[in-house]
Amino acid sequence: MAEFAYDIRDLKFILNEWLDMDEVFGLDRFKDNYEKDDIDFILNEVYKMAKEVVFPINKEGDEIGLKFANGKVTLPPAYIEAYKFLQENGWGSANESLGSDELMPLTLYRAYNEMLMAACPALTSYIKLTTGAANLIYRFGTDQDREMFIENMLNGQWSGTMCLTEPNAGSDVGDSTTRAYPTDDPGIYKIKGTKMFITGGEVDLSENIIHMVLARPEGGAPGSKGLGLYIVPKIWVNEDGSLGEPNDVVCIGVEHKMGLKASATAMLSFGENDNCRGILVGSPADSEGASKGLSMMFHMMNESRIGTGHNALSQMAAAYYFAAKYATERIQGRLFTNPKAGRVPLIKHEDVKRILLEMKAQVEGIRAMIFRGFYYLDIAEHSSDKEKAKRCQGLAEILTPLIKTYAAETAWQMIGQAIQVYGGVGYTEEYPVSQYARDVKILSIWEGTSFIHAMDLVGRKMRMGDGVPFANWMNDRKEFIETNKNNEGFGAEFNRLAKAYQCVAEIKELYSAYYADKTQKGHLIPLYALRVLTCCAQLFAAESILDQAILAKRKIEELGTDHHDYTYYAGKVNSAKFFINNILPNVYYQAELIKNADVSALECPEEAFIVS
Amino acid sequence: MAEFAYDIRDLKFILNEWLDMDEVFGLDRFKDNYEKDDIDFILNEVYKMAKEVVFPINKEGDEIGLKFANGKVTLPPAYIEAYKFLQENGWGSANESLGSDELMPLTLYRAYNEMLMAACPALTSYIKLTTGAANLIYRFGTDQDREMFIENMLNGQWSGTMCLTEPNAGSDVGDSTTRAYPTDDPGIYKIKGTKMFITGGEVDLSENIIHMVLARPEGGAPGSKGLGLYIVPKIWVNEDGSLGEPNDVVCIGVEHKMGLKASATAMLSFGENDNCRGILVGSPADSEGASKGLSMMFHMMNESRIGTGHNALSQMAAAYYFAAKYATERIQGRLFTNPKAGRVPLIKHEDVKRILLEMKAQVEGIRAMIFRGFYYLDIAEHSSDKEKAKRCQGLAEILTPLIKTYAAETAWQMIGQAIQVYGGVGYTEEYPVSQYARDVKILSIWEGTSFIHAMDLVGRKMRMGDGVPFANWMNDRKEFIETNKNNEGFGAEFNRLAKAYQCVAEIKELYSAYYADKTQKGHLIPLYALRVLTCCAQLFAAESILDQAILAKRKIEELGTDHHDYTYYAGKVNSAKFFINNILPNVYYQAELIKNADVSALECPEEAFIVS
Repeated sequence: MAEFAYDIRDLKFILNEWLDMDEVFGLDRFKDNYEKDDIDFILNEVYKMAKEVVFPINKEGDEIGLKFANGKVTLPPAYIEAYKFLQENGWGSANESLGSDELMPLTLYRAYNEMLMAACPALTSYIKLTTGAANLIYRFGTDQDREMFIENMLNGQWSGTMCLTEPNAGSDVGDSTTRAYPTDDPGIYKIKGTKMFITGGEVDLSENIIHMVLARPEGGAPGSKGLGLYIVPKIWVNEDGSLGEPNDVVCIGVEHKMGLKASATAMLSFGENDNCRGILVGSPADSEGASKGLSMMFHMMNESRIGTGHNALSQMAAAYYFAAKYATERIQGRLFTNPKAGRVPLIKHEDVKRILLEMKAQVEGIRAMIFRGFYYLDIAEHSSDKEKAKRCQGLAEILTPLIKTYAAETAWQMIGQAIQVYGGVGYTEEYPVSQYARDVKILSIWEGTSFIHAMDLVGRKMRMGDGVPFANWMNDRKEFIETNKNNEGFGAEFNRLAKAYQCVAEIKELYSAYYADKTQKGHLIPLYALRVLTCCAQLFAAESILDQAILAKRKIEELGTDHHDYTYYAGKVNSAKFFINNILPNVYYQAELIKNADVSALECPEEAFIVS
Repeated sequence: MAEFAYDIRDLKFILNEWLDMDEVFGLDRFKDNYEKDDIDFILNEVYKMAKEVVFPINKEGDEIGLKFANGKVTLPPAYIEAYKFLQENGWGSANESLGSDELMPLTLYRAYNEMLMAACPALTSYIKLTTGAANLIYRFGTDQDREMFIENMLNGQWSGTMCLTEPNAGSDVGDSTTRAYPTDDPGIYKIKGTKMFITGGEVDLSENIIHMVLARPEGGAPGSKGLGLYIVPKIWVNEDGSLGEPNDVVCIGVEHKMGLKASATAMLSFGENDNCRGILVGSPADSEGASKGLSMMFHMMNESRIGTGHNALSQMAAAYYFAAKYATERIQGRLFTNPKAGRVPLIKHEDVKRILLEMKAQVEGIRAMIFRGFYYLDIAEHSSDKEKAKRCQGLAEILTPLIKTYAAETAWQMIGQAIQVYGGVGYTEEYPVSQYARDVKILSIWEGTSFIHAMDLVGRKMRMGDGVPFANWMNDRKEFIETNKNNEGFGAEFNRLAKAYQCVAEIKELYSAYYADKTQKGHLIPLYALRVLTCCAQLFAAESILDQAILAKRKIEELGTDHHDYTYYAGKVNSAKFFINNILPNVYYQAELIKNADVSALECPEEAFIVS
């Protein structure tokens, strides 16, 4: 089996050289616990674990999958070991849990976590969900809730889930029908309903599972605003933290999926015997029946959604590294420009190298974009400079839909290309790339479909705060171009970037006009929203990687071409050139389509889509 | 389980209304056997079979797959039944076999075969390979070969394979090391070597398997020109057609693939005990060691490669029909433009409808392109007008790489979108779309990778016959625009088409200049070849579907909007508008990139791709 390899150099570049990590490590929350010197050690340690502990179980999980019988899910034993290993040794939830002393900056945590996700995405999703549940309890629970639950979740004894989706309420979570009935015990409710697509909803990783459940209290308003949030342990937890009786939560099935076969996607029935108890989080419904359950959940969503994009990026990156390695080893065919020179490795073929650089450019561009998102979240969450924190919060919120959607959509295409580089063997399960293709596809649906995020961008993020955060965001783009455009060696690239900026500015104007005339133009808003998102994402990714390339070029000038890092920096410059000259021009094309505003999709009779 | 549905109306439109099938049915080879009135009957019959006999086994094959033990492959029994049913009842190889009285025009055969491929691609590949092998024997074998083999292949008793690839010779088949040694028996050779990726190489469908094997005779020249072609039956066939002893052909393994799990992809060892006999096809190697094995195989390749594109099209079409149906049934969310109207079916959401029309436009555009290819092949093969046959042969050869590659590459993207329409359930194996994604991916690799076809286009097809066939092809495009551009209602579309034509013309000029200055510009030829192919394919598909839309619009004018066919025709007009206004402009974008000729992919140091 091919060995796992990952571009730890690029992660170190981002943290040690590119982002202003002095600022991040200087934040009060972190300054006594972590310092810049920790970066290399942490990344090196985790890279070793990713190679030796985590990646080896990835294929096993895919082949064996999980077993479901009598309401119980059984994972391959190696998964349980790996889960406990990471959680107990402090490489899991503890490092991203707000209530933990070991809390790391997201930038740092996510850098090492990226390698673990790449090595086994089915495993890391259990950790991610546990962290999410613990963070919800930390942020919105009572002191008692925190004491009862968090420690055991962070140390791997208990795992956690988020329960939103129902059989008849997916993207429209406001239509949920799960109910919460008050009991005589204040704060304790009886929960009744069915939830589906619950990652880790039933699993033998841990002795207890803490479900965070959206449910509508009696008398709650309809729609999403009536939903409350409840802590529903699989096994009841006594006030002293000891385990009580089993709660009335039953796993009634798991999904048979295309990929992520060791990630248990459960259908859960709560309160089938009217005996499922949940602890209310936050205040009860107000006099108008409104609860804050969904908004509490959404509070965690920016990180979670950027994290989903990051998950997609990590898988596409892993597939790319495998394909690149294979391309240097596999001898196949002769050069077009020099056929007499004999057979050559695949990478010598121009189109193969083009595919590889396309993957590299997408990976590095998206990674750069994502880490800027985490950087903004670090500042937004922890900076004492409230003005700056607010600005960064706005920027992170704008980036969230871009990252989530662009990374997930691009991953499907790029992993398809990784299979292509392998040729026929890439289609077999002997090599790891086909599993990545199967594992990654869900990420354009998880945590909101691409369309939902596109509407979040044009409907909310571009317009929130009277449009100030988006104007800030656009202004940052413009300023980057103004400040750097005379940088030697990137003249053509800055011209292209400026043109793409202009396209996005025009699109923004157009969308403002649509909102101003919603009766006449409203239908165009959702019709072209996803294209708008793609344009914004490609503009931002292009800028980010160009910014990196400028730094890399300076490093080359400083260190010379004989330095052992020369190859890395030269590769970075080429990634940026490829991205801007080959990928970014898609923005011009999309902008034309948006302005052209063809409505054939809306005019086509619905019946024309149906055959019988 | 969802019921199989297919757009039989579009197939009927192509054969009954759009293509000049009078010309095809008037060809000497067909005029006594088939007539236009047969079309609807044949399509209706096969559609019923596809629904009732073939589609029901598709999921079973995926779930159960095949078993391999002791050198034997066991298929799910339903596969064997379905194979025999189609072959014995004359719905398989007999209809596309040159030596058969039932030979149909490809246009007709392929129209019904499309539904069978869509219903179960793993099944139809066995039929396709059997036909291919039988056609090779018919065209290049002796009378005795024909008598010994063909009948039993066409009636389903024996199946066939094509054996090209070896562990160390994939895309570069000329590097094959399988050998053929003469025996005392004239025309009989001993075969020794290993072949891999042999579809149907070992399978329990039939009592014998007829392998068509490329091997290098002793003293054969190196490279592809030294390869001969041999008939190697799994069980030796006596001169009277009866079965003899087992030949020395052993299946040493099957691939575990991402999809097509009921399609046996075998590794075969020939002559491990020095006792594998093969019958030479064609003449022995000439004095320079040259044989015609590969060119004989390639003679069948145009149809086979268009067929691979057609296979991709059929799967993407099936996934689209399933997704469209689901979108009309599944209630989810509220309209952006009218949220108070309550929950609506998915198809009402603008972006969902946009995805559906994109799939529809791609499906219909590619299908139109493919059937023009089959039409050209029918004329090329059977017309008594030699001039016309030659012209059509040239056009079919140009279309071959376009169809094969554009269909296969687009299918991966479009089936990904079909999963997206379903949302979370699309990622589960309860619905058919994820299987299509897994099944289809190999088609961009089978029968030559996308890059190989791109080089075939720019290196051979654009330049063969002093460039006359490609000039004819371009001229046809120009003439279409000139003749139809004033057609009312499509003014904007013709402007766009003319612009795309101009782009392709400029690209062609540029490539001619590259070939004229290969020393300086040669590297750009392979670097941008795939983009060139995409431009040509999108131009041709756009024209084809626009041509259909003009006809559809005329039909609407004739029949009125109350006619039961109105929806179909209106949908066709919208498909064309969507294709030309949203997909075709990609040609402008690609043409810009080609002209810009960025070489970052070639400049990037190889070491920059490798991480460790």
